[in-house]
Amino acid sequence: MSITVVGSVAYDSIETPAGRRERCLGGAATYFSLAASFFTDVRVIAVVGDDFGPEQEAIFKARNIDTRGIEHAPGRCFLWEGSYLDDINQAKTHLTELNVFACFEPKIPAAYADSDFLFLANIDPVLQRRVRESMPGVKLVAGDTMNYWIKDHRPALLEVLKGLDVLLINDAEARMLAANNNLVQAARAVMALGPRFLVVKHGEYGATLFHSSGKGRAGDRTFRAPAMPLEAVIDPTGAGDSFAGGFFGYLASQPEPTPGAFRCAMFYGSVMGSFACERFGTERLQQLTRAEIDERFHVFRELTHLD
Amino acid sequence: MSITVVGSVAYDSIETPAGRRERCLGGAATYFSLAASFFTDVRVIAVVGDDFGPEQEAIFKARNIDTRGIEHAPGRCFLWEGSYLDDINQAKTHLTELNVFACFEPKIPAAYADSDFLFLANIDPVLQRRVRESMPGVKLVAGDTMNYWIKDHRPALLEVLKGLDVLLINDAEARMLAANNNLVQAARAVMALGPRFLVVKHGEYGATLFHSSGKGRAGDRTFRAPAMPLEAVIDPTGAGDSFAGGFFGYLASQPEPTPGAFRCAMFYGSVMGSFACERFGTERLQQLTRAEIDERFHVFRELTHLD
Repeated sequence: MSITVVGSVAYDSIETPAGRRERCLGGAATYFSLAASFFTDVRVIAVVGDDFGPEQEAIFKARNIDTRGIEHAPGRCFLWEGSYLDDINQAKTHLTELNVFACFEPKIPAAYADSDFLFLANIDPVLQRRVRESMPGVKLVAGDTMNYWIKDHRPALLEVLKGLDVLLINDAEARMLAANNNLVQAARAVMALGPRFLVVKHGEYGATLFHSSGKGRAGDRTFRAPAMPLEAVIDPTGAGDSFAGGFFGYLASQPEPTPGAFRCAMFYGSVMGSFACERFGTERLQQLTRAEIDERFHVFRELTHLD
Repeated sequence: MSITVVGSVAYDSIETPAGRRERCLGGAATYFSLAASFFTDVRVIAVVGDDFGPEQEAIFKARNIDTRGIEHAPGRCFLWEGSYLDDINQAKTHLTELNVFACFEPKIPAAYADSDFLFLANIDPVLQRRVRESMPGVKLVAGDTMNYWIKDHRPALLEVLKGLDVLLINDAEARMLAANNNLVQAARAVMALGPRFLVVKHGEYGATLFHSSGKGRAGDRTFRAPAMPLEAVIDPTGAGDSFAGGFFGYLASQPEPTPGAFRCAMFYGSVMGSFACERFGTERLQQLTRAEIDERFHVFRELTHLD
């Protein structure tokens, strides 16, 4: 089944203890699409500037990603500059230039209308909602958000949450959204806002899926996927979006989103997140093969299973 | 197989968001013994003061723990006062009174000499080493330590590490001991100091076992056990020691410490740690049944296994 993703396609200038890269192709929609493309057909909706040319387009094309929804606008791409020097798990933002992203009005190509799954990457919830409403036929909708929207755009975000099947956020975002420091209580509160499935990402400690058995309280079923103990985290940029791409891409590749498929999707999410960290920017995702993905899936199973 | 544990038997005055308790029976050896007692015979070496009477002794006796190695000295028991008000995962110490513990000279009862396993809980590494050397016949030795010993008593600690089969520490301690922020690199560095098995505890995110395949580099095999997503952490005091008790107790209950036994031991460690948090002090461990433990083991399997 095909996935449409709406989000940022951007440039990142990144410094980590492993080195520095200027203007890597990045953005949530880029990482998501590359990761998901190993599992299913992906279609992107984004806006880029004059500094996005055939070379960048080729990165998507090499993975058979449909780029007809990438709008070219006069100006420059979204630019983020950040570092992970003090703490590899915590980005420090030095500069954010919205550029063409400031006036982003997502337009959905007619060819995307029959998409089965929709992923609303971390953008203004007003835009997320508009895209969601423009694609009423999708079977499963997942989304991401961040502290800025939770804190300063809560009413718009709450409207988005009502229309989500799956929300993927990190620990701090879950606690902030629920105003509750206990993860289980926070998860229940977040699920009461709409999503039937909640994935809380714990960075190097993996991720937890909360869902409902239908018999007990919301979020009474949990599943925990590990993260890969990595000897060297070169660049964690995009790991969360790559998790989302692996997770949702795998789910879209399955005949039905059964509980078992969700469990495997959590593992594939962790697998893709772990690969993303192994090189700067999207370098590792660009070079990856499906065989490597399945091999690491097997490693994750070994890492967690008793027998 | 029987375990001898040496460590603190103490009183804790604890404040958490769930309330306050004055002078609960605590200490690493207490939590460890109670947790391990569900799996095997446990013998304690510790020192207590005049404020430790038959009522406290009964807590050990109820779990068939051998207390002949608990020395009664004039004075008062070790006392710790702390709170977890800002962050349930981070204890804030208000007061530490060593009391009789200041002059602790572990004495090993003759009846303990045939113990199969030895656990050196978090005490002065000079004492840990002395106990280790006094029990040359044990088959497997595990130990714990803390930032204070790592920072200010490093040479003595390094001597202890040489004699350990298993070291159980938390993330921050592993990184501090190795002077390396990457967990995999830190684990390898710590294992080069002696222990063939390293358990790194991640608090609410579970724990990772590092060991060696014998084919690659030290610590090239990993196993990750989850922690239980708990709706209410009443009091995390002793969770790490309860983990150690469940882990080592289960291992001692098995005919051989095989890789498979170590994996199950990680799960039982997490199980016991999760129970410890559900009530103040040792309350939950005192009321626990083996059936509840195995039921939670099953929940942990469900939480992590794909099928």
